[in-house]
Amino acid sequence: MKNIFLVVALSLFVGAFAQQKELTLEEAVLSRSKGLIPENIDRLQWVSGTNNYIYLEDNYYVIKTVEGKQVAKFGLEKFEETYPSLKKLPRFKSISATEIVFEYKNQVVHFDYKAAKEIGKVLFDEKAANKDYHNNKVLAYTLNNNLYVATTSNSKIAVTNIQDKNIVSGQAIHRYEFGISKGTFWSPKGNYLAFYQKDETNVTDYPLVDVTTYPATVNNIKYPMAGQKSEIAKIGIFDVKTSKTIYLNIDTKDEHYLTNLSWTPDEKFVLVAEVNREQNHMWYNRYDVITGEKVNTLFEEKSDKWVEPENDAAFLPNSNTDFLWMSERDGFMNLYLYNTSGELKKKVTQFDYVIKSILGFHVGSQSVFVSATDKDARNTHIVKISIPMAMFINITPESGVHNGQISDDGTYLIDNYSSLTVPRKIDIVTTKPGTKPKNILTAKNPLVAYKLGATEFVTLKSKDGFDLYSRVIKPANFDPSKKYPVLVYVYGGTHAQLVTNNWLGGARLWMHWLATQKEYIIFTLDNRGSAARGFAFESVIHRVGGEPAMEDQLVGVDYLKTLSYVDSKRIAVHGWSYGGFMASSLMLRHPGVYTVGAAGGPVTDWKYYEVMYGERYMDTPQENPEGYANSRVGKYLENLEGKLLIIHGSIDPTVVPQHSMTLLQEAVEKEVQIDFFTYPMHPHNVRGKDRVHLMTKILDYIVKYNK
Amino acid sequence: MKNIFLVVALSLFVGAFAQQKELTLEEAVLSRSKGLIPENIDRLQWVSGTNNYIYLEDNYYVIKTVEGKQVAKFGLEKFEETYPSLKKLPRFKSISATEIVFEYKNQVVHFDYKAAKEIGKVLFDEKAANKDYHNNKVLAYTLNNNLYVATTSNSKIAVTNIQDKNIVSGQAIHRYEFGISKGTFWSPKGNYLAFYQKDETNVTDYPLVDVTTYPATVNNIKYPMAGQKSEIAKIGIFDVKTSKTIYLNIDTKDEHYLTNLSWTPDEKFVLVAEVNREQNHMWYNRYDVITGEKVNTLFEEKSDKWVEPENDAAFLPNSNTDFLWMSERDGFMNLYLYNTSGELKKKVTQFDYVIKSILGFHVGSQSVFVSATDKDARNTHIVKISIPMAMFINITPESGVHNGQISDDGTYLIDNYSSLTVPRKIDIVTTKPGTKPKNILTAKNPLVAYKLGATEFVTLKSKDGFDLYSRVIKPANFDPSKKYPVLVYVYGGTHAQLVTNNWLGGARLWMHWLATQKEYIIFTLDNRGSAARGFAFESVIHRVGGEPAMEDQLVGVDYLKTLSYVDSKRIAVHGWSYGGFMASSLMLRHPGVYTVGAAGGPVTDWKYYEVMYGERYMDTPQENPEGYANSRVGKYLENLEGKLLIIHGSIDPTVVPQHSMTLLQEAVEKEVQIDFFTYPMHPHNVRGKDRVHLMTKILDYIVKYNK
Repeated sequence: MKNIFLVVALSLFVGAFAQQKELTLEEAVLSRSKGLIPENIDRLQWVSGTNNYIYLEDNYYVIKTVEGKQVAKFGLEKFEETYPSLKKLPRFKSISATEIVFEYKNQVVHFDYKAAKEIGKVLFDEKAANKDYHNNKVLAYTLNNNLYVATTSNSKIAVTNIQDKNIVSGQAIHRYEFGISKGTFWSPKGNYLAFYQKDETNVTDYPLVDVTTYPATVNNIKYPMAGQKSEIAKIGIFDVKTSKTIYLNIDTKDEHYLTNLSWTPDEKFVLVAEVNREQNHMWYNRYDVITGEKVNTLFEEKSDKWVEPENDAAFLPNSNTDFLWMSERDGFMNLYLYNTSGELKKKVTQFDYVIKSILGFHVGSQSVFVSATDKDARNTHIVKISIPMAMFINITPESGVHNGQISDDGTYLIDNYSSLTVPRKIDIVTTKPGTKPKNILTAKNPLVAYKLGATEFVTLKSKDGFDLYSRVIKPANFDPSKKYPVLVYVYGGTHAQLVTNNWLGGARLWMHWLATQKEYIIFTLDNRGSAARGFAFESVIHRVGGEPAMEDQLVGVDYLKTLSYVDSKRIAVHGWSYGGFMASSLMLRHPGVYTVGAAGGPVTDWKYYEVMYGERYMDTPQENPEGYANSRVGKYLENLEGKLLIIHGSIDPTVVPQHSMTLLQEAVEKEVQIDFFTYPMHPHNVRGKDRVHLMTKILDYIVKYNK
Repeated sequence: MKNIFLVVALSLFVGAFAQQKELTLEEAVLSRSKGLIPENIDRLQWVSGTNNYIYLEDNYYVIKTVEGKQVAKFGLEKFEETYPSLKKLPRFKSISATEIVFEYKNQVVHFDYKAAKEIGKVLFDEKAANKDYHNNKVLAYTLNNNLYVATTSNSKIAVTNIQDKNIVSGQAIHRYEFGISKGTFWSPKGNYLAFYQKDETNVTDYPLVDVTTYPATVNNIKYPMAGQKSEIAKIGIFDVKTSKTIYLNIDTKDEHYLTNLSWTPDEKFVLVAEVNREQNHMWYNRYDVITGEKVNTLFEEKSDKWVEPENDAAFLPNSNTDFLWMSERDGFMNLYLYNTSGELKKKVTQFDYVIKSILGFHVGSQSVFVSATDKDARNTHIVKISIPMAMFINITPESGVHNGQISDDGTYLIDNYSSLTVPRKIDIVTTKPGTKPKNILTAKNPLVAYKLGATEFVTLKSKDGFDLYSRVIKPANFDPSKKYPVLVYVYGGTHAQLVTNNWLGGARLWMHWLATQKEYIIFTLDNRGSAARGFAFESVIHRVGGEPAMEDQLVGVDYLKTLSYVDSKRIAVHGWSYGGFMASSLMLRHPGVYTVGAAGGPVTDWKYYEVMYGERYMDTPQENPEGYANSRVGKYLENLEGKLLIIHGSIDPTVVPQHSMTLLQEAVEKEVQIDFFTYPMHPHNVRGKDRVHLMTKILDYIVKYNK
């Protein structure tokens, strides 16, 4: 072992020794409803067009200046006369200095909260779904597979009227990959609606059984499996004035992806990142919304692994042409200034760490605010970047994970953050550097009364030299002369980090329950493939399933074995989803390392996973037969030493039950005894109250067999 | 406890003490293929129209006289020239002194085995299913949902040609209840074919998921659940000469059952037992096969519990009008002589035990042969009954379970039997009493080399005074000063007996594995509701689910607790199907009695079981809401003490997976931890090699948790 194990000093005892309250597993799992998460300020945000902020407190909306002076306060009584059915203060779609916009029954209403007077409304169909509102008083929504728009004069204009159930309009496409979270996109002024449409005729059905009916019935979902036929995407443009729809002239018979749809501020064009089905080539194209024809390809991005545009164009204030584009093309997510002719005007940042998102602009200083890691990817800061100067400053210097909201003019930031040692703080920050943040909330440690142990961060090294962030949770009354069993909690897939410098270090409270109530060490390591570390760190997994990820997890195990207080013969592993794939693979491909594994909602064979996510990392089964064959969990069943529990939601639409069922079938065929439980009528995750049952099952199993 | 525990002397050590071969669980489960079941004579039967018998030995058919004189012997070489594709001696449909009838490719051929010459054949469609052949050289078969007849001149006459997939012709109806095993019934001379047709339009689909396809697909089966709409039955009559079909004029819109279809010998009438959907009233009706009209109702049977005709009319030799009818109307299955006018000519038997079936007639003495229990229902004998004299004699006096084949003229019986102490004997018996049987096989104990323990029969008493037969299996090297844990193996439903006086006392060999390899006592008791004990014993279960059955099982537990060598704190329970219902109900409704239960393919809620079987015993959910509610296993989940394992085949079409899934869902809802495993792509029973995995899982679970 040549790895250098660097244990950082950062370490937290979330419980104070003097206190001895015993945490229950129910409290740990239902920590939010049990009041065990740090206090927050409800519905806190900037009031549009001002530098005042609003929040909910004691059933009143309060608006304050950044100096803390209250400028408005109103409760339910303000609304009662106009909206007699309101039972509590409404959540708002937007708030300005005079106007609050919210839903009341089947209306979106604009209400002058100073005058207590309704100043506009849009009615819509009662069964409306996927509602997307623009303050120009237009609402897009869907009913079943069709798309509608409601205006002040018409509550139901059919944008599409398609009987064929295989064609779905106005909803997210591509299974929410490529940063897609919705299917409708209002133009900046609300005169046009761009929308996605997908044709799923060629996509196979996956049958999920509903056992709550009498008798059971099938719910077929469209599920495109890797290597099989996929959906065909389209983009429509609906003109509110004429009620006419055109479709962009894009030939998608090759099943390529239409992503990152953005409007130009002048509403003349939409920009679309088009990615081939192989996901190794992106064309950033501009389309004319009147003719539907392509105007130009601004630029292309290619990779021998994958390209994955996930962020829309961010147009500079007051420009119809110049925008910032986020790209990993140099290995890290950096900002590039382009214009719509496709000219690269400037590479704005040269970070060797990762920008996560663009939060806003400061017009005066021509600056952009981004959320980004620093050199330590466990932190997330808000960084102000001068576009002309290509200079930047971290305006949230305190270590931790910062979530920011920038006021409209960019002069203020609401900074909501925590770290391993800070439960939560919310500051009002002047974005001009050198001013002192004004703290408006410092949350107390909600666990202070409980007997809990320490959390420590440890940095290990992958064989190819990357830092691997890991986290050790110890029991209360930790005694270094004892030998403790270990649970390794793993995820290991892309787009996620488990070890972060926020409250509890990213850990779940059940880990502290296990640590203290069962005297365990809980260990977690973010292996290569995980998020916020740059493309090289992430893309090493291409075509090889979990192999580099497992290699790194074994570095973690090697580290554990160096610890005098670890019983290295009693190491368990648990994970869910990709972590279920990892947990089961680690058990079967590295027999003897772990005594017991619990794999929830596991991918067991990438050919049963979906086209969009799966093919990005694995290519198709036809292109990469070896990669699929070698990553198939069942291939290694005969190796099992110890105990393996598989758990699956019976109607999991993400990792479909076929993964676990075929693994079980192969285990029976190979005469290997594994254990299984299914959560009837639960989808990919077991949430709510039933999660206590789930964690009880998993942790009982681990404690029982980790010997 | 006032029960009298009567331990009978009958007891067997299947293994000899001198031998010490250890039985493996694989050998126990796959006992047939492992050569651990008693030797038999293959394909032994009477040669039609003679008193010679045929059997297969060393790849030769041998025909012998009852005295043992060989009259013919022929092997594959006899067939080779005419049937070059035959690879081994064919199984035959019938055999006479000169002619053997068998299938060769897509033909039924009549072959003169003396002359080695084909003397007739009928061709049929290659995909034919449900083949039913009459020696008049007519074959009925089905393709998908339609019925066809093949003759010497035409291989495919469509009897039905119905496109609607909901209408099924020529297959068994009513889910094989009421003694129904097929859907076609040739008239005695083969001139007509009567057939069942069912219209399942109103029957709901139950979805079973096939995980072997890519992606998974649904296989919908028609499954009428208790209280829901059921199938509509019809009977068609096809006339071979005219190729015309008529349907009997029966109005079945009330979903009543058409069962026990019999032809009169003159081919003029069919007799049909018609049972109302409530199953408490039977009309025995005669229909004219030319007009399809009802001629008369011969008689009716009613019950305040249920009527369940399961045996066809057995016409007396040389009579077109007089037949024997089996009825439980006096509390036991007895024989009644009726004529087709409906006159009851005689009650032939007055048994207070149970006739199981009619085997044949002896013309000269006007006698009928039946299979029946004696006063001890663990035995089955062949009884010759003089119809005019109403006298009877057991022609198989040796205790045990006798299976008989009567020669055509009734003068001889092939008697194949075993008992707890006799592995198997086959005798040729002269049916005239007083003659000595001629033994043609005495099988050796196939387990003689193994270290196995004793099997003992014990008779207990139900609270209402019925004898309850039970069986105790002990380990080899049983030491009465030790305390042994117990597994209670239970079925408990109707139509079955587990404790019988045949080889191993009806036990499965895995019980001996558990007894000796894990030092267990295995206990089984046939509670009220089980078969061959008469209507009062069986029908006490009406409308109350498993309650009397459980009461009796607890009598068994009370007995076990009196045994000094039983560790009464370590009693486990296991059963499958109805036995799964019993095992899970016993665990949950009698907490503290059993430490661990394993319930396979369990009924957990009778409303998810089928109309035909379920409503007979439980009425409908609408008629008997309390019975359904109180027998629902999930109702008692909170009571669980100890461990409960549920197992289900993932495509179980008999007890559909909804039973286990809803139980699991309720367990999660109630925060009760139970265990579960599913056998992917297995139906109601896990058979074949995978059964070793199943029994390993169950017995490992029991041994682990029965503490």
